[in-house]
Amino acid sequence: MANKGMTSFDPSALCQVAIVVRSIDETVKFYTEVFGIGPFEIRQVDFPNATYCGQKAGYRGKRAFAKLGPVTLELIELIEGKTVHEDFLKEKGEGLHHIAFAVKDLKRCEEEAEKLGLKVIQGMKREDGSGFAYLDSDRIGGAMFELIQWQV
Amino acid sequence: MANKGMTSFDPSALCQVAIVVRSIDETVKFYTEVFGIGPFEIRQVDFPNATYCGQKAGYRGKRAFAKLGPVTLELIELIEGKTVHEDFLKEKGEGLHHIAFAVKDLKRCEEEAEKLGLKVIQGMKREDGSGFAYLDSDRIGGAMFELIQWQV
Repeated sequence: MANKGMTSFDPSALCQVAIVVRSIDETVKFYTEVFGIGPFEIRQVDFPNATYCGQKAGYRGKRAFAKLGPVTLELIELIEGKTVHEDFLKEKGEGLHHIAFAVKDLKRCEEEAEKLGLKVIQGMKREDGSGFAYLDSDRIGGAMFELIQWQV
Repeated sequence: MANKGMTSFDPSALCQVAIVVRSIDETVKFYTEVFGIGPFEIRQVDFPNATYCGQKAGYRGKRAFAKLGPVTLELIELIEGKTVHEDFLKEKGEGLHHIAFAVKDLKRCEEEAEKLGLKVIQGMKREDGSGFAYLDSDRIGGAMFELIQWQV
Protein backbone atom coordinates (compact mmCIF):
# COMPACT_ATOMS: atom_id res chain seq x y z
CA MET A 1 0.00 0.00 0.00
CA ALA A 2 1.35 3.42 -0.88
CA ASN A 3 2.18 5.58 2.11
CA LYS A 4 0.07 8.65 1.42
CA GLY A 5 1.12 10.43 4.59
CA MET A 6 4.53 10.68 6.21
CA THR A 7 6.73 9.14 3.55
CA SER A 8 9.78 9.47 5.80
CA PHE A 9 8.12 7.43 8.58
CA ASP A 10 8.68 3.66 8.73
CA PRO A 11 6.10 1.80 10.89
CA SER A 12 8.38 -1.23 11.06
CA ALA A 13 10.99 0.81 12.95
CA LEU A 14 9.22 0.42 16.31
CA CYS A 15 12.01 0.64 18.87
CA GLN A 16 10.58 1.51 22.30
CA VAL A 17 7.58 0.96 24.52
CA ALA A 18 7.54 3.52 27.33
CA ILE A 19 5.83 3.59 30.70
CA VAL A 20 5.48 6.61 32.98
CA VAL A 21 5.98 5.44 36.57
CA ARG A 22 6.03 7.11 39.97
CA SER A 23 9.10 5.18 41.11
CA ILE A 24 11.67 3.64 38.81
CA ASP A 25 13.33 1.87 41.73
CA GLU A 26 10.09 0.19 42.77
CA THR A 27 9.11 -0.73 39.21
CA VAL A 28 12.56 -2.09 38.31
CA LYS A 29 12.53 -4.21 41.47
CA PHE A 30 9.09 -5.60 40.59
CA TYR A 31 9.90 -6.27 36.92
CA THR A 32 13.22 -7.88 37.81
CA GLU A 33 12.03 -10.07 40.66
CA VAL A 34 8.72 -11.18 39.17
CA PHE A 35 9.23 -11.17 35.39
CA GLY A 36 13.01 -11.52 35.13
CA ILE A 37 13.17 -8.39 32.96
CA GLY A 38 16.61 -6.81 32.82
CA PRO A 39 19.35 -5.94 33.30
CA PHE A 40 18.13 -2.34 33.48
CA GLU A 41 20.33 0.59 32.58
CA ILE A 42 19.31 3.45 34.87
CA ARG A 43 20.32 7.01 34.12
CA GLN A 44 19.32 10.64 34.36
CA VAL A 45 18.49 12.62 31.25
CA ASP A 46 18.85 16.40 31.03
CA PHE A 47 17.38 18.27 28.06
CA PRO A 48 17.81 22.01 28.77
CA ASN A 49 16.86 22.88 25.17
CA ALA A 50 13.72 20.76 24.93
CA THR A 51 10.49 22.36 23.75
CA TYR A 52 6.94 21.97 25.03
CA CYS A 53 4.17 23.13 22.67
CA GLY A 54 6.73 25.08 20.67
CA GLN A 55 8.19 26.93 23.68
CA LYS A 56 11.56 26.22 25.22
CA ALA A 57 10.99 24.13 28.34
CA GLY A 58 14.00 22.20 29.53
CA TYR A 59 13.54 19.22 31.75
CA ARG A 60 15.35 16.53 33.66
CA GLY A 61 14.16 13.01 34.31
CA LYS A 62 15.16 9.58 35.50
CA ARG A 63 15.05 6.69 33.03
CA ALA A 64 15.48 2.93 33.04
CA PHE A 65 15.98 0.84 29.92
CA ALA A 66 15.82 -2.92 29.38
CA LYS A 67 15.35 -5.15 26.37
CA LEU A 68 12.09 -6.95 25.65
CA GLY A 69 13.39 -8.97 22.72
CA PRO A 70 13.64 -6.62 19.74
CA VAL A 71 12.13 -3.63 21.53
CA THR A 72 13.44 -1.51 24.41
CA LEU A 73 11.29 -0.98 27.49
CA GLU A 74 11.69 2.57 28.81
CA LEU A 75 10.59 3.59 32.29
CA ILE A 76 10.10 7.30 32.82
CA GLU A 77 10.20 9.06 36.19
CA LEU A 78 9.79 12.83 36.55
CA ILE A 79 12.42 14.99 38.17
CA GLU A 80 11.90 18.56 37.01
CA GLY A 81 10.34 20.59 34.21
CA LYS A 82 7.14 20.72 32.16
CA THR A 83 6.69 17.49 30.19
CA VAL A 84 4.14 15.35 28.42
CA HIS A 85 5.04 12.70 30.99
CA GLU A 86 3.93 14.94 33.85
CA ASP A 87 0.67 15.74 32.03
CA PHE A 88 0.01 12.03 31.59
CA LEU A 89 0.78 11.15 35.20
CA LYS A 90 -1.57 13.87 36.44
CA GLU A 91 -4.39 12.99 34.05
CA LYS A 92 -4.19 9.20 33.93
CA GLY A 93 -1.73 8.01 36.54
CA GLU A 94 1.07 5.53 35.88
CA GLY A 95 0.89 3.53 32.69
CA LEU A 96 1.90 2.88 29.10
CA HIS A 97 2.62 6.32 27.69
CA HIS A 98 4.00 6.05 24.17
CA ILE A 99 5.60 3.89 21.55
CA ALA A 100 8.68 5.17 19.73
CA PHE A 101 9.86 4.74 16.17
CA ALA A 102 13.37 5.32 14.84
CA VAL A 103 13.49 7.80 11.96
CA LYS A 104 16.35 8.76 9.68
CA ASP A 105 15.44 12.41 9.18
CA LEU A 106 13.66 13.86 12.19
CA LYS A 107 13.30 17.35 10.75
CA ARG A 108 11.66 16.09 7.57
CA CYS A 109 9.44 13.73 9.54
CA GLU A 110 8.28 16.59 11.77
CA GLU A 111 7.54 18.77 8.76
CA GLU A 112 5.50 16.01 7.13
CA ALA A 113 3.62 15.40 10.37
CA GLU A 114 2.76 19.07 10.78
CA LYS A 115 1.55 19.31 7.17
CA LEU A 116 -0.85 16.49 8.04
CA GLY A 117 -2.11 18.39 11.08
CA LEU A 118 -0.08 16.61 13.75
CA LYS A 119 1.66 18.84 16.25
CA VAL A 120 4.99 18.20 17.96
CA ILE A 121 4.04 18.54 21.62
CA GLN A 122 7.49 18.02 23.02
CA GLY A 123 10.84 17.72 21.30
CA MET A 124 14.58 18.14 21.39
CA LYS A 125 17.01 18.49 18.52
CA ARG A 126 20.81 18.47 18.59
CA GLU A 127 22.97 20.36 16.12
CA ASP A 128 23.59 17.17 14.16
CA GLY A 129 19.82 16.78 13.61
CA SER A 130 19.40 13.93 16.05
CA GLY A 131 16.81 14.14 18.82
CA PHE A 132 13.20 13.26 19.45
CA ALA A 133 9.67 14.52 18.92
CA TYR A 134 6.43 13.53 20.60
CA LEU A 135 3.45 13.87 18.25
CA ASP A 136 -0.10 14.54 19.38
CA SER A 137 -1.17 11.35 17.63
CA ASP A 138 -3.20 10.56 20.75
CA ARG A 139 -6.06 12.76 19.50
CA ILE A 140 -7.27 9.73 17.52
CA GLY A 141 -6.94 6.35 19.20
CA GLY A 142 -5.25 7.72 22.30
CA ALA A 143 -1.67 6.57 21.69
CA MET A 144 1.25 8.99 21.62
CA PHE A 145 3.99 8.29 19.07
CA GLU A 146 7.56 9.43 19.57
CA LEU A 147 9.98 9.87 16.68
CA ILE A 148 13.65 9.32 17.49
CA GLN A 149 16.63 10.13 15.32
CA TRP A 150 19.54 8.46 17.06
CA GLN A 151 22.78 10.31 17.60
CA VAL A 152 25.53 8.69 15.55
CA MET B 1 20.63 -12.88 35.89
CA ALA B 2 18.63 -15.69 37.42
CA ASN B 3 14.90 -15.33 37.03
CA LYS B 4 13.74 -15.55 40.62
CA GLY B 5 10.08 -15.12 39.79
CA MET B 6 8.07 -16.59 36.92
CA THR B 7 10.55 -19.05 35.48
CA SER B 8 8.12 -19.92 32.68
CA PHE B 9 7.92 -16.28 31.55
CA ASP B 10 10.27 -15.01 28.83
CA PRO B 11 10.55 -11.19 28.69
CA SER B 12 12.04 -11.39 25.20
CA ALA B 13 8.79 -12.90 23.87
CA LEU B 14 7.07 -9.51 23.58
CA CYS B 15 4.57 -9.96 20.76
CA GLN B 16 1.85 -7.30 20.96
CA VAL B 17 1.27 -3.67 21.86
CA ALA B 18 -2.44 -3.03 22.34
CA ILE B 19 -4.50 0.15 22.28
CA VAL B 20 -8.10 0.49 23.46
CA VAL B 21 -9.92 2.79 21.03
CA ARG B 22 -13.45 4.12 20.68
CA SER B 23 -13.53 3.49 16.94
CA ILE B 24 -11.39 0.99 15.10
CA ASP B 25 -12.56 2.34 11.74
CA GLU B 26 -11.48 5.88 12.59
CA THR B 27 -8.15 4.80 14.11
CA VAL B 28 -7.29 2.45 11.24
CA LYS B 29 -8.02 5.25 8.75
CA PHE B 30 -5.78 7.64 10.68
CA TYR B 31 -2.92 5.17 11.11
CA THR B 32 -3.09 4.09 7.48
CA GLU B 33 -3.36 7.52 5.90
CA VAL B 34 -0.88 9.34 8.14
CA PHE B 35 1.66 6.73 9.22
CA GLY B 36 1.32 4.13 6.48
CA ILE B 37 0.65 1.42 9.08
CA GLY B 38 -1.02 -1.65 7.67
CA PRO B 39 -2.50 -3.63 6.10
CA PHE B 40 -4.85 -4.16 9.03
CA GLU B 41 -6.68 -7.41 9.60
CA ILE B 42 -10.03 -6.52 11.14
CA ARG B 43 -12.15 -9.15 12.84
CA GLN B 44 -14.59 -9.82 15.64
CA VAL B 45 -13.62 -11.93 18.62
CA ASP B 46 -16.10 -13.88 20.72
CA PHE B 47 -15.01 -15.44 24.02
CA PRO B 48 -18.15 -16.84 25.68
CA ASN B 49 -16.04 -18.71 28.27
CA ALA B 50 -13.81 -15.83 29.29
CA THR B 51 -13.43 -14.99 32.97
CA TYR B 52 -13.33 -11.63 34.73
CA CYS B 53 -11.92 -11.63 38.28
CA GLY B 54 -12.38 -15.39 38.42
CA GLN B 55 -16.05 -15.34 37.36
CA LYS B 56 -17.32 -16.43 33.96
CA ALA B 57 -17.94 -13.30 31.91
CA GLY B 58 -18.07 -13.86 28.18
CA TYR B 59 -17.47 -10.98 25.85
CA ARG B 60 -17.35 -9.96 22.23
CA GLY B 61 -15.16 -7.30 20.70
CA LYS B 62 -13.83 -5.84 17.49
CA ARG B 63 -10.10 -6.05 16.80
CA ALA B 64 -7.63 -4.78 14.22
CA PHE B 65 -4.11 -6.14 13.84
CA ALA B 66 -1.13 -4.80 11.90
CA LYS B 67 2.61 -5.37 12.06
CA LEU B 68 5.01 -2.82 13.52
CA GLY B 69 8.16 -4.66 12.53
CA PRO B 70 8.61 -7.58 14.94
CA VAL B 71 5.60 -6.70 17.09
CA THR B 72 1.88 -6.73 16.34
CA LEU B 73 -0.22 -3.64 16.95
CA GLU B 74 -3.66 -4.59 18.28
CA LEU B 75 -6.57 -2.17 18.33
CA ILE B 76 -9.39 -3.05 20.70
CA GLU B 77 -12.99 -1.83 20.39
CA LEU B 78 -15.72 -2.89 22.80
CA ILE B 79 -18.86 -4.62 21.64
CA GLU B 80 -20.39 -6.43 24.59
CA GLY B 81 -19.48 -7.89 27.97
CA LYS B 82 -17.51 -6.99 31.08
CA THR B 83 -13.84 -6.52 30.22
CA VAL B 84 -10.62 -4.94 31.41
CA HIS B 85 -10.79 -2.92 28.21
CA GLU B 86 -14.11 -1.37 29.21
CA ASP B 87 -12.72 -0.57 32.68
CA PHE B 88 -9.74 1.16 31.09
CA LEU B 89 -11.83 3.16 28.63
CA LYS B 90 -14.10 4.38 31.42
CA GLU B 91 -11.26 5.24 33.79
CA LYS B 92 -8.61 6.61 31.43
CA GLY B 93 -10.11 6.98 27.98
CA GLU B 94 -8.51 5.69 24.78
CA GLY B 95 -4.87 4.72 24.95
CA LEU B 96 -2.11 2.16 25.23
CA HIS B 97 -3.63 -0.60 27.34
CA HIS B 98 -1.25 -3.55 27.56
CA ILE B 99 1.76 -5.32 26.16
CA ALA B 100 1.53 -9.04 25.48
CA PHE B 101 4.08 -11.83 25.77
CA ALA B 102 3.92 -15.25 24.18
CA VAL B 103 4.20 -18.08 26.70
CA LYS B 104 4.57 -21.81 26.15
CA ASP B 105 2.61 -23.01 29.18
CA LEU B 106 -0.15 -20.57 30.13
CA LYS B 107 -1.47 -22.64 33.03
CA ARG B 108 1.96 -22.90 34.66
CA CYS B 109 2.65 -19.22 34.03
CA GLU B 110 -0.65 -18.27 35.70
CA GLU B 111 0.12 -20.47 38.69
CA GLU B 112 3.56 -18.90 39.07
CA ALA B 113 2.09 -15.41 38.78
CA GLU B 114 -0.54 -16.10 41.43
CA LYS B 115 2.07 -17.53 43.82
CA LEU B 116 3.87 -14.21 43.45
CA GLY B 117 0.70 -12.30 44.33
CA LEU B 118 -0.36 -11.36 40.79
CA LYS B 119 -3.99 -11.99 39.95
CA VAL B 120 -5.41 -12.98 36.57
CA ILE B 121 -8.02 -10.26 36.03
CA GLN B 122 -9.33 -11.58 32.76
CA GLY B 123 -8.61 -14.78 30.92
CA MET B 124 -9.70 -17.46 28.50
CA LYS B 125 -8.43 -21.00 28.11
CA ARG B 126 -9.22 -23.54 25.41
CA GLU B 127 -9.21 -27.29 25.99
CA ASP B 128 -5.76 -27.58 24.40
CA GLY B 129 -4.36 -25.16 27.02
CA SER B 130 -4.04 -22.21 24.65
CA GLY B 131 -5.61 -18.90 25.52
CA PHE B 132 -4.74 -15.67 27.27
CA ALA B 133 -4.53 -14.10 30.71
CA TYR B 134 -4.36 -10.46 31.74
CA LEU B 135 -2.34 -9.96 34.94
CA ASP B 136 -2.88 -7.13 37.41
CA SER B 137 0.75 -6.12 36.91
CA ASP B 138 -0.51 -2.53 36.64
CA ARG B 139 -0.56 -2.23 40.44
CA ILE B 140 3.14 -1.34 40.25
CA GLY B 141 4.24 0.82 37.33
CA GLY B 142 0.77 0.97 35.77
CA ALA B 143 1.26 -1.37 32.81
CA MET B 144 -0.92 -4.40 32.25
CA PHE B 145 0.80 -7.52 30.89
CA GLU B 146 -1.05 -10.14 28.87
CA LEU B 147 0.19 -13.71 28.57
CA ILE B 148 -0.75 -15.51 25.36
CA GLN B 149 -0.37 -19.20 24.61
CA TRP B 150 -1.03 -19.45 20.88
CA GLN B 151 -3.32 -22.12 19.51
CA VAL B 152 -1.29 -24.57 17.41
